[in-house]
Amino acid sequence: MKLSDVAELIGGELVGDGSIEIANIGKIETAGPDEVTFIANPVYEKFFSGTSAGAVVVSRKFNTGKYKRLDERIIPLIKVDDPYLAFLELLEKFSPKTELQKIGIHETAVIDETAEISIKDVRIGPHCFIGAKAKIGKRVTVLPNAVILAGAEIGDDALIYPNVTIYNGCKIGKRVIIHSGTVIGSDGFGQAKNPDGTFQKIPQKGIVVIADDVEIGSNCSIDRATIGETVINKGVKLDNMIQIAHNVEIGENTVIAAQTGIAGSTKIGKNCMIGGKVGIVGHIEICDGVILTAATNVSKSISKPGVYSGYRAQPQMQELKQEAVIRNLSKKK
Amino acid sequence: MKLSDVAELIGGELVGDGSIEIANIGKIETAGPDEVTFIANPVYEKFFSGTSAGAVVVSRKFNTGKYKRLDERIIPLIKVDDPYLAFLELLEKFSPKTELQKIGIHETAVIDETAEISIKDVRIGPHCFIGAKAKIGKRVTVLPNAVILAGAEIGDDALIYPNVTIYNGCKIGKRVIIHSGTVIGSDGFGQAKNPDGTFQKIPQKGIVVIADDVEIGSNCSIDRATIGETVINKGVKLDNMIQIAHNVEIGENTVIAAQTGIAGSTKIGKNCMIGGKVGIVGHIEICDGVILTAATNVSKSISKPGVYSGYRAQPQMQELKQEAVIRNLSKKK
Amino acid sequence: MKLSDVAELIGGELVGDGSIEIANIGKIETAGPDEVTFIANPVYEKFFSGTSAGAVVVSRKFNTGKYKRLDERIIPLIKVDDPYLAFLELLEKFSPKTELQKIGIHETAVIDETAEISIKDVRIGPHCFIGAKAKIGKRVTVLPNAVILAGAEIGDDALIYPNVTIYNGCKIGKRVIIHSGTVIGSDGFGQAKNPDGTFQKIPQKGIVVIADDVEIGSNCSIDRATIGETVINKGVKLDNMIQIAHNVEIGENTVIAAQTGIAGSTKIGKNCMIGGKVGIVGHIEICDGVILTAATNVSKSISKPGVYSGYRAQPQMQELKQEAVIRNLSKKK
Repeated sequence: MKLSDVAELIGGELVGDGSIEIANIGKIETAGPDEVTFIANPVYEKFFSGTSAGAVVVSRKFNTGKYKRLDERIIPLIKVDDPYLAFLELLEKFSPKTELQKIGIHETAVIDETAEISIKDVRIGPHCFIGAKAKIGKRVTVLPNAVILAGAEIGDDALIYPNVTIYNGCKIGKRVIIHSGTVIGSDGFGQAKNPDGTFQKIPQKGIVVIADDVEIGSNCSIDRATIGETVINKGVKLDNMIQIAHNVEIGENTVIAAQTGIAGSTKIGKNCMIGGKVGIVGHIEICDGVILTAATNVSKSISKPGVYSGYRAQPQMQELKQEAVIRNLSKKK
Repeated sequence: MKLSDVAELIGGELVGDGSIEIANIGKIETAGPDEVTFIANPVYEKFFSGTSAGAVVVSRKFNTGKYKRLDERIIPLIKVDDPYLAFLELLEKFSPKTELQKIGIHETAVIDETAEISIKDVRIGPHCFIGAKAKIGKRVTVLPNAVILAGAEIGDDALIYPNVTIYNGCKIGKRVIIHSGTVIGSDGFGQAKNPDGTFQKIPQKGIVVIADDVEIGSNCSIDRATIGETVINKGVKLDNMIQIAHNVEIGENTVIAAQTGIAGSTKIGKNCMIGGKVGIVGHIEICDGVILTAATNVSKSISKPGVYSGYRAQPQMQELKQEAVIRNLSKKK
Repeated sequence: MKLSDVAELIGGELVGDGSIEIANIGKIETAGPDEVTFIANPVYEKFFSGTSAGAVVVSRKFNTGKYKRLDERIIPLIKVDDPYLAFLELLEKFSPKTELQKIGIHETAVIDETAEISIKDVRIGPHCFIGAKAKIGKRVTVLPNAVILAGAEIGDDALIYPNVTIYNGCKIGKRVIIHSGTVIGSDGFGQAKNPDGTFQKIPQKGIVVIADDVEIGSNCSIDRATIGETVINKGVKLDNMIQIAHNVEIGENTVIAAQTGIAGSTKIGKNCMIGGKVGIVGHIEICDGVILTAATNVSKSISKPGVYSGYRAQPQMQELKQEAVIRNLSKKK
């Protein structure tokens, strides 16, 4: 594709020679002469002088004069309003999706005869299992060795990666993506203590409901409710190795980074941003719009939006002040 | 089922109209007119005034007069000694177990010809693998895509969920439940440093022994011993994503919440309660009856029962006092 | 095997009766009369007086006189320079490897017709899947139910345990070992916020490259790069449940203990030793030779080798001093 076509594709202003051939996109540090790269974050401007890329997508405000090219080559630019969004478009354009599974049901997949599989462009891979009365929507992809137990439902256009397990009765929304190793609907951790110190299992009879447009990373565990539902609302995005206990509810468009754990019956609001390795105890409520920095532990409800952090969560400003006081104190001694 | 029959089933005293039909159980916040709910925890008494449930199971001490019903309906009660235990009985009654796998060995399962499978009511699902000389006890259920390697042994009535992996030679007791994604017997993390900075793998030749009545959540890892055994004793209950390193031993009836990790050769006593996200270093001993609150890190042996907490574990009272001193200090400045 | 043969095998000096028969190796606490044990760590010397082992491998400096045998039996010794290395040799000798998979491709494995499988001693187990254009090297073992998606490459002598998932295009080096439940190449956690608060998935078009001689424990997640590569360099050893985000790079011979997480684009140096449950934020750099103790959280780049620890990483000496000051402070009040 000619550079001038690239510029047109992303609606940018071409400055320089539009006739060069672009074969791919690349990172500014490593891109070659037939690759286009971009600068969205000013931190990366320092690489401008030395990049070997064929062209650079930059913000309209980007000041070329500031950076002298080391090889004195005049590098073509494409100026756009938002270089990052432009980059996303090019990413899709130059990296077509690998087709991981052909349309149809692989002959080695085992599908219970009472399961309802949409006839519309479904892809079910080798060695998958679909249990009794499970329902699989239109254009769903289930990759090799995934297991969907009895009565589970998968919405249209969902994508289930290999070795995922979805327990009986759980409901997965439309366009949901679930990465490998993730388990949806394992039993909540309910154990009632007997007088002799042993424990009796509390049956976990509820389900998990994952709403539309949720993405769940690899090796997550989302437990089924004791009764009722564990709920992951619309547009929630979960990173890898996240533990969601029974009867938890997570509000719309909340994003959670890796290795975070949320204990039973806790309710998280909408539009929260939760860092990695955060721990949240059970039976509390976090309101909408809360930001928890990485490794924060929350043991009480939070009712005001804002940023919280610390081994025992506090408003971030307060916690950083406390940290500074402690550090000063130990310097004095 | 008539409400009077429900009362009889749980040995409770019916107060009100026993002729109404009960179809299910429900949470007090959401139960409908054909559902029975319960109040075990006083925190939920506040919902009594507004619940739409057909009836409520309460403690014999429950004081109805204290809560005025919003709709002035006189709601039938069933009075029992322990509402929670009564609820567990109803949970079983109204939510019959889904049969996830029929009796027999699915035709797509691969069973080594030297494996010993009990002929008594075993269920082995599609695409399972049972290796050479493995032994499977009576009434064991192995769900789809679980893998049991050579020489492993599974005790009577055990339940192995989909996509579980049990490595060679590991021994699983009777009535053990293992949830999806869990790995039993992966190699312990043993690496000997060579003079040139590279590492040489220390062969891990031991096994994992899981005693009777243990339940293990999803996505846990329990490593095999270097030599000898990693031991999970009788009645231990593990939540999800728990890491148990090589040669660890966990005492009877100890319960551990999600995302906790225990490093190599550490010994945990009986009847301990270990919160979520706890970290315990290797080569130490925790005595019987220790409680570790969530996110506690333990780096030294604990020889007295009691509650411990903190980024560096201390007796909880001491740790909370320390926390208070720090918070005051930073307020003054 | 006679004890004198054992001594010869490990090049040690026999002190005592070499005619006894040795059938196995054992731990000093539990070894029986036909087993040889060892003392490498002085902590275990206390067991010398009471061990029932047939013989003990000890350091040449070991002072027998110091420990009186309880049963007055004169226990044969084998004196060597490094008892631990000698033990490793015996471990291999007495515990031959279990053959987990026969040479050849199991008839239930599904191999895409365009995949390139070496004809040299490859072992591919039941219910495995190998996708289009994937490449499998010489003497590779892929155990039951592992999934290798399109275009992935596995180097010679690699060992892939059951239920591992390797996503499309990822490259695995020679002699790499990957334990069960681990996921290589799941999508990096890239979500761009839309003006309405919803998130748009940033396509993850890069791959993961695992260099030669890497070992990865069970239930780890290593995400693919957005563009370019997530890189695990030669000789890196990862324990279980480790989260490696997109575009991370880990230097040669670095070892990382369980439940540690490293956020996106962070670069870790060579020869680092990272404890369990460590958290490292994204977009920072840790230089060569850094040691992070267990449960440390790192939020800034580290440019000097040394030991760091704490809820917010500091040089360890400084952090321990701070801890001591705090503990004193709360005792006074």
